[in-house]
Amino acid sequence: MKKFRIGLIGYGFMGRAHSNAYRKVGNFFDLEHECILQAACARDAAKARAFATRWGYQSVETDWRKLIARDDIDVVDICVPNNLHAEIAIAAAKAGKMILCEKPLAMNGSEGKKMVAAVEKAKVPNMVWYNYRRIPAVTLAKQLIDEGRLGKIFHYRAKFLQDWTISADLPQGGTGLWRLDVKAAGSGVTGDLLAHCIDTALWLNGGIETVNAMTETFIKQRKHTLTGKVEKVGIDDACAFLARFNNGSLATFESTRYARGHKALYTFEINGEHASIFWDLHDLHRLQYFDHRDEGLVRGWRSIHVSDGDQPYMKHWWVPGLQIGYEHSFIHQVADFLKGIETGKPAGPTFRDALETQHVCDAVLTSAKTGAWQKVKTSAK
Amino acid sequence: MKKFRIGLIGYGFMGRAHSNAYRKVGNFFDLEHECILQAACARDAAKARAFATRWGYQSVETDWRKLIARDDIDVVDICVPNNLHAEIAIAAAKAGKMILCEKPLAMNGSEGKKMVAAVEKAKVPNMVWYNYRRIPAVTLAKQLIDEGRLGKIFHYRAKFLQDWTISADLPQGGTGLWRLDVKAAGSGVTGDLLAHCIDTALWLNGGIETVNAMTETFIKQRKHTLTGKVEKVGIDDACAFLARFNNGSLATFESTRYARGHKALYTFEINGEHASIFWDLHDLHRLQYFDHRDEGLVRGWRSIHVSDGDQPYMKHWWVPGLQIGYEHSFIHQVADFLKGIETGKPAGPTFRDALETQHVCDAVLTSAKTGAWQKVKTSAK
Amino acid sequence: MKKFRIGLIGYGFMGRAHSNAYRKVGNFFDLEHECILQAACARDAAKARAFATRWGYQSVETDWRKLIARDDIDVVDICVPNNLHAEIAIAAAKAGKMILCEKPLAMNGSEGKKMVAAVEKAKVPNMVWYNYRRIPAVTLAKQLIDEGRLGKIFHYRAKFLQDWTISADLPQGGTGLWRLDVKAAGSGVTGDLLAHCIDTALWLNGGIETVNAMTETFIKQRKHTLTGKVEKVGIDDACAFLARFNNGSLATFESTRYARGHKALYTFEINGEHASIFWDLHDLHRLQYFDHRDEGLVRGWRSIHVSDGDQPYMKHWWVPGLQIGYEHSFIHQVADFLKGIETGKPAGPTFRDALETQHVCDAVLTSAKTGAWQKVKTSAK
Amino acid sequence: MKKFRIGLIGYGFMGRAHSNAYRKVGNFFDLEHECILQAACARDAAKARAFATRWGYQSVETDWRKLIARDDIDVVDICVPNNLHAEIAIAAAKAGKMILCEKPLAMNGSEGKKMVAAVEKAKVPNMVWYNYRRIPAVTLAKQLIDEGRLGKIFHYRAKFLQDWTISADLPQGGTGLWRLDVKAAGSGVTGDLLAHCIDTALWLNGGIETVNAMTETFIKQRKHTLTGKVEKVGIDDACAFLARFNNGSLATFESTRYARGHKALYTFEINGEHASIFWDLHDLHRLQYFDHRDEGLVRGWRSIHVSDGDQPYMKHWWVPGLQIGYEHSFIHQVADFLKGIETGKPAGPTFRDALETQHVCDAVLTSAKTGAWQKVKTSAK
Repeated sequence: MKKFRIGLIGYGFMGRAHSNAYRKVGNFFDLEHECILQAACARDAAKARAFATRWGYQSVETDWRKLIARDDIDVVDICVPNNLHAEIAIAAAKAGKMILCEKPLAMNGSEGKKMVAAVEKAKVPNMVWYNYRRIPAVTLAKQLIDEGRLGKIFHYRAKFLQDWTISADLPQGGTGLWRLDVKAAGSGVTGDLLAHCIDTALWLNGGIETVNAMTETFIKQRKHTLTGKVEKVGIDDACAFLARFNNGSLATFESTRYARGHKALYTFEINGEHASIFWDLHDLHRLQYFDHRDEGLVRGWRSIHVSDGDQPYMKHWWVPGLQIGYEHSFIHQVADFLKGIETGKPAGPTFRDALETQHVCDAVLTSAKTGAWQKVKTSAK
Repeated sequence: MKKFRIGLIGYGFMGRAHSNAYRKVGNFFDLEHECILQAACARDAAKARAFATRWGYQSVETDWRKLIARDDIDVVDICVPNNLHAEIAIAAAKAGKMILCEKPLAMNGSEGKKMVAAVEKAKVPNMVWYNYRRIPAVTLAKQLIDEGRLGKIFHYRAKFLQDWTISADLPQGGTGLWRLDVKAAGSGVTGDLLAHCIDTALWLNGGIETVNAMTETFIKQRKHTLTGKVEKVGIDDACAFLARFNNGSLATFESTRYARGHKALYTFEINGEHASIFWDLHDLHRLQYFDHRDEGLVRGWRSIHVSDGDQPYMKHWWVPGLQIGYEHSFIHQVADFLKGIETGKPAGPTFRDALETQHVCDAVLTSAKTGAWQKVKTSAK
Repeated sequence: MKKFRIGLIGYGFMGRAHSNAYRKVGNFFDLEHECILQAACARDAAKARAFATRWGYQSVETDWRKLIARDDIDVVDICVPNNLHAEIAIAAAKAGKMILCEKPLAMNGSEGKKMVAAVEKAKVPNMVWYNYRRIPAVTLAKQLIDEGRLGKIFHYRAKFLQDWTISADLPQGGTGLWRLDVKAAGSGVTGDLLAHCIDTALWLNGGIETVNAMTETFIKQRKHTLTGKVEKVGIDDACAFLARFNNGSLATFESTRYARGHKALYTFEINGEHASIFWDLHDLHRLQYFDHRDEGLVRGWRSIHVSDGDQPYMKHWWVPGLQIGYEHSFIHQVADFLKGIETGKPAGPTFRDALETQHVCDAVLTSAKTGAWQKVKTSAK
Repeated sequence: MKKFRIGLIGYGFMGRAHSNAYRKVGNFFDLEHECILQAACARDAAKARAFATRWGYQSVETDWRKLIARDDIDVVDICVPNNLHAEIAIAAAKAGKMILCEKPLAMNGSEGKKMVAAVEKAKVPNMVWYNYRRIPAVTLAKQLIDEGRLGKIFHYRAKFLQDWTISADLPQGGTGLWRLDVKAAGSGVTGDLLAHCIDTALWLNGGIETVNAMTETFIKQRKHTLTGKVEKVGIDDACAFLARFNNGSLATFESTRYARGHKALYTFEINGEHASIFWDLHDLHRLQYFDHRDEGLVRGWRSIHVSDGDQPYMKHWWVPGLQIGYEHSFIHQVADFLKGIETGKPAGPTFRDALETQHVCDAVLTSAKTGAWQKVKTSAK
């Protein structure tokens, strides 16, 4: 088997999720490559070592530049806060490494553009961890749409609701809280949560033409963990926007961290001429499907328990009725990335695909400031 | 229009439900008969008058024998406790009245048999108020089964769960509580709740051959409202039984008034070779339907919102998406009874149909005592 | 008992729903007034007579002006297309009649303003049939909010999705289809469906400050039933808007008749600091409630089956677990209107309340044209 | 770290599930032991090698006796058909190995008794893979019950419904189909599916006193894969039974492979004086909980998304809202087994615990033959 020697930068939530994927993919998928956990990199040496021990990384680095410089690393996996993505990715591309980068691609479109240029110039395989595309139910939705089952699309609606930042006592910045610090995150729910919704939407429903957004920061000041001072909160706590897709469909998108009762409620619904689809991250193993061509007497929303062998990815797992979970989306993504390398047909979302999402986020944030409809840039070749 | 002059005996929960049905049926159904609320009968004259005033009954009686003797009454509606059904029904039949009798038909099969004999001898139209047959979703289930969509039936399971008698402080007997008094009710959940489950089951799935039951009385003694004394409780608080139908299918039935969290959770499910059906009284306007012949990729339970004009009874009501409620089942029953008279094709369940349910109840109660499988009597002609 | 002599204008869907309410309210509610179905009015004499016969109206008119002129009419109920509301209501007010008017109040705010002036000048009790306020689960939501259980409100989201106009073969105009004719309806989903969402929202969450909307007409031309010609479609098939409430909360609203799989899916959700609420017209007898103050280990959305006697309106109906339906909201509205008269505390929404909804609709339609945020007028005294 | 050197016998569905658990447990749980995949054993050498390669087993055996004889094996994991459990387990115990045995423990109680005697004589840690106990929602149910939140228990009901053997063309016996061959499986759904239901029930609700069962074999003859001939089917396709627990509660249990629409629908519900619990394997990450002590106005079933750090096992995984799947129950079981060794407090179900389940299964199968209530043996010390 060919070796796929991984250098992982960052050891947080995503560092764990990716490491788990690398360790498991070979047990469940037939691939030409074997994942080798070559090196884990983090500034704090003790933490890096502990992480490496737990996950089986064979070595440790505390400087990502050294990691990138190593000959025995094939791929760099970037799991650090958003403000570090561009610099690392561009350097890694120059070093000829394949790159797997956490989402969102960048702090904004102009940064993202440079990253795309770098990987395309270096011709290195690249991908962004928009993992929800590879939840089997979501992949099934894609398949149904591509087969034309929905017909002309009229509506798209997505939301991603959480409730974990309602307390005013929660600080901003630092480990586990950098998502509240605009300097590290770039934006709030827009880059963190809506980016997921947008990635899925572009994949399922094509390009977005124009958007009209509003944002709100409910808690205006929070103590900053790193400075110890109460500082202005720079991120958006909530964001909602209207959109029009290239295919003529209308959309609403909304995200917030102030929706009591929802831990991570990412839902989307698509209404087509013939059929509709609904999915919900809180019950991610199900797809709701309505087909108007069903006989009227017994027509209704079908609750599809996506766990059969003929449904996407599921033949690799257990038996019908036994659900998989969140983490499996990462395993599928690694499997597809490797198959992409093996077949020469790159799996998405590539950096270029993810740049489109960045452009939508930029337009959303601009519209929220100007109060006007904003045209979305496109980087499609 | 022909007149359908009603004499109603009893003014409780069922007296209200039936009166409402008589008052509304003509607004929504095209019938040859007009319901005339001719007389309301109750032992307590003041209560009878108040009831008559509220519902528009034109006269009042305090002795049911006088009511039956009146020439201006076409139909007698019996809404009194179970221990009075037989005497009144037999007398009414002798007087040549049509009869609508609350369920269960009788205290037991031998009483029921006499009632059947009486109405059949008198040749008077007769019916028992097993109203759940006429919830549109349940009627739709019947239609799907009769069309053969389920194929060979393997399983039937029904339950009727409530939680209103858990408190040991609740007395037995008297207004609103006669269902806890074995002398008035004959049995507990078996005659009150399982009788509904059995009626639906016989209608949907044919005759029951044998049963094996257990019952329990959790609270052994309760104060009796009428005597003021603590007395032994004679009813079954809970009853569960196994059954085999004539068609070879296996069944489980269960009812209790000790299931916390369930107000009136009547559910049934039928599993056939090709398709399955599930219904739930707490969401009575929906039918869950699974058809294995659907394409595997998008196969799932369909949640059918039974509110379209081509679904049973629904063209008489509002527009799609707008649900009807519990009380409408009674309106449908009156409409069907009247159509039965008008067309000469009697609507069920007739007394004879309801006697079958009585036989199953008897076998269940016997089996619970003997601990052995019990064959069910049949009164089918 | 005092008489409440009703003159009903129009015999369509709403004419039936209101008539049913008048006929039933006295059976279930204790009121000082008795509803008298005095006269039904429609231009087509035969249809008016048929309707009157079916529902028990004692007389018939074919000219609404004659109806209004009659001495034996206490209240005029307006169930005709939107373009006729203003003229009839103003005339009825001048004639000193009480007025119950179908929603939306008017074709637009300026018409509505004149109607408000007329009823306030005449000092006649008045109300608009925004019936959803009186679905028990919705009334319960109001009660929970008013008790402060939700705390500061962050988000409101509502949608009303249907799918009945997707076919391009459906004509516009004429009986049953006037809602597609802009001359009769004034607007499409905005006045028909979003008006309901807005009325509920203003009631539950207070005034709306600004809106930003988009609309779409998917089918540009339809045959007009009255002219027989293919004509431009003037209504909005779909409308979505962002909004900010006076209380600082953010909102999304959406309505369409192009959402496959949804017959009449009106849903709203409110997220507060402490608790959240969700309701769905397709299961109108349930309220979903999440309370963050519940112990974390067993915290979850509660599915409340609103059928207990201590829940709004339900003591008037059956027993716990037995649901009521859509039509009951109208009965509750009549009961509340009559109690309002009897107690001198008018029940809402009055014409003045409904004018606020009209102002929001106007702002929405304006914003959809200009593409800009639009401030909402207010008529609050 | 101490080594936990595993010798796995069998490479089917369970062989995969266990291997996955051994490989992952150390990444997510802090343990004193490290799992070492020492040897995989299967009669077919090529299959054994392929399995070992895929999962990282360091060596291969084709004779389980040789595996057991090896000095470098600490624990034997038995994943072969039921008819081989006893012989292997007894030999492994004699060899002083720890034993993890797939469920059900044995072909019947008498075999199970010998196995218990063997492990207890040898004093080797032992466990049976009734993995559902360690689905977080099920463990939470146990915790709530043990805290006394439900009060006196009135009812228990469980079912395990599948639909994969409805086709008469499905053969019996051989790889993947030994569950249909009575000689390999001992029984049908009783040992395969009801055993799970019974294990959970005994754990949550205590001992079962008496049972009354019926079984059915819908397809009487099937081709046998090994002999190539059509042979009588010896297993039960469906089994339902009534039961009484020692604590006075009543129960119904049912399992079948003929319930269209259900892939692996294991559900249980417990009704107590104060609260009720419901769980469903098809949405295994949720627990439904009803607490009567909640205020009446807002009382309802709570849908608990069991994914918070304070809920059983979940702090080891991702973040709130992100569900885990079926396979995680095995990881939890390995973690608990190892903690049991480390702390000297053995985790259940031990062989002795599992023998109780075997006794219930025996009583069920006997009752199905005799048609009479059957007392359950107990092996409790």
